[in-house]
Amino acid sequence: MAVYTAVPAEALGAFLKRYDQGELVSAKGIAEGVENSNYLVETTRGRFILTLYEKRVSAADLPFFLALVDQVDAAGVPAPRALLDSAGNAIGTLEGRPACLIQFLPGVSPSRPTAAQAAAAGEALGRLHAAVADFTPTRPNDLGIAGWRPLLERCGRGIDTIAPGLFDRIDAALARVERAWPHALPVATIHADLFPDNVLMLGDAVTGLIDFYFACTDIRAYDVAVMHSAWAFDTEGHPIDGVGPALVSGYAARFGLLAEERAALPVLAEGACIRFMLTRAWDWLNTPADALVTRKDPLAYLRRLEWYQANGDAFR
Amino acid sequence: MAVYTAVPAEALGAFLKRYDQGELVSAKGIAEGVENSNYLVETTRGRFILTLYEKRVSAADLPFFLALVDQVDAAGVPAPRALLDSAGNAIGTLEGRPACLIQFLPGVSPSRPTAAQAAAAGEALGRLHAAVADFTPTRPNDLGIAGWRPLLERCGRGIDTIAPGLFDRIDAALARVERAWPHALPVATIHADLFPDNVLMLGDAVTGLIDFYFACTDIRAYDVAVMHSAWAFDTEGHPIDGVGPALVSGYAARFGLLAEERAALPVLAEGACIRFMLTRAWDWLNTPADALVTRKDPLAYLRRLEWYQANGDAFR
Repeated sequence: MAVYTAVPAEALGAFLKRYDQGELVSAKGIAEGVENSNYLVETTRGRFILTLYEKRVSAADLPFFLALVDQVDAAGVPAPRALLDSAGNAIGTLEGRPACLIQFLPGVSPSRPTAAQAAAAGEALGRLHAAVADFTPTRPNDLGIAGWRPLLERCGRGIDTIAPGLFDRIDAALARVERAWPHALPVATIHADLFPDNVLMLGDAVTGLIDFYFACTDIRAYDVAVMHSAWAFDTEGHPIDGVGPALVSGYAARFGLLAEERAALPVLAEGACIRFMLTRAWDWLNTPADALVTRKDPLAYLRRLEWYQANGDAFR
Repeated sequence: MAVYTAVPAEALGAFLKRYDQGELVSAKGIAEGVENSNYLVETTRGRFILTLYEKRVSAADLPFFLALVDQVDAAGVPAPRALLDSAGNAIGTLEGRPACLIQFLPGVSPSRPTAAQAAAAGEALGRLHAAVADFTPTRPNDLGIAGWRPLLERCGRGIDTIAPGLFDRIDAALARVERAWPHALPVATIHADLFPDNVLMLGDAVTGLIDFYFACTDIRAYDVAVMHSAWAFDTEGHPIDGVGPALVSGYAARFGLLAEERAALPVLAEGACIRFMLTRAWDWLNTPADALVTRKDPLAYLRRLEWYQANGDAFR
């Protein structure tokens, strides 16, 4: 949520000359997405997002992400495609970093989604899954279940400075999730991070799915669980009336949900809570309290975890 | 250079309803300007900058800034005017903060200005001074010469952690500037911060002067000196060939420069160097090194100060 690399206007103007997209009119660094540098760029021919990939996104993974977004968008689910320069390349170099000029999509992200918005977003996830059903490249989920215990160990007992007893609570929840994990469910390409932040909407209509930089190959229904954990609760962790069911219904109506997938949603959602609690706890422990960067509260996900543990029948 | 207040899309949509500017289409937090929160907002009717004023800008000063920008823009020097809502108010409230919906201006800021760009920017400062010649509201310069010694004392000897002996060097330079300060020169409304960052250009043409939040009433030629100190040097503090003279010529050709103003430019520029060195040093000492905020190097202005001290004839 910051601009890490300053791009001089002169360098940006030269970079744009490689694309057939007119002359530079305006460029504003925007606070958006994962740890990349993003600019909203206007040329005489349109508006674009310029992304410079910082160290968190591996350059080796970029072709996977770009091919995935292309396929999603080509299938009619609006997603931000990278433009090709006049030599036919999607990935260039700017200020020493891999850089892409990306399609601008209209829409804003709901802060407190309504049931109608959740239904549309769930349906969009179903369309995304349909769009990538024949997508053959694969990418392991670095933040999947196999990575959670090592991440908990790396956080260590220091995690108890966030809340007393937190280490043991996560440890116990993780042990239960590890025992019950539905390894036999269908695996597919998933977005893995479809928070409201990453869904652009106008009113109740989805106008774009963005930020595919956690996309990977994992249990398909886990994508529904991630989305449920991110959409169905307010910031305090209380469920928002009607939102969770609307999301799952929208998805199931569009893509379908196997009985065994639906049955596994509680444990998948508990896993999603552990994943986001752990990465937030890691960031929390490693970001100075006075840094001008918003630290996301790990405990918001502890409350969601407890809700899923207490409401195993929520998805029936 | 950060977004301090997150504005939910729902609250922004409601805020926009007070303006006759169409429906919300897109909103991106932008990393721009002083310590305000800024969004680039698109509606069905156009693009705008939404500014939420954080604690650094006093709400009591806002009417001064807005009236000034209105007068500048009305005189044909493009500046970002605040729009009036349907009740005729320029200042609203959003997320508990004073907020304005502001005209979007095209253009990008040069990172390494050319002489032609400096001439155009100097000329634009001349046009600005002409536009505000009859502007009657006044605002003291909180960061004017009377404030420099107290700020040096507040930084204290800790400033020597930036560079050994820095306190004594600034102390001596300030004493010299205080003795030579041209208090009798004409006083007027000045921008006081017209760095390249605050000048939007397309090619060699100025398309906007922005960020008037340091504007105040002070010696008019000090504005030329501030601009010279900010434009005429590269990031290492070496003068860029031809840029400083072009800037002063552009200004003088448009607005005029009295012989006594020109003669005072070296001491005014030394003062500008002390001002920016001190505020940067204060931020440096009070921003943690690991914060994800760019600390501007105070020593870039020490090198400029030394250049002015050694080149007192540069403005003849």
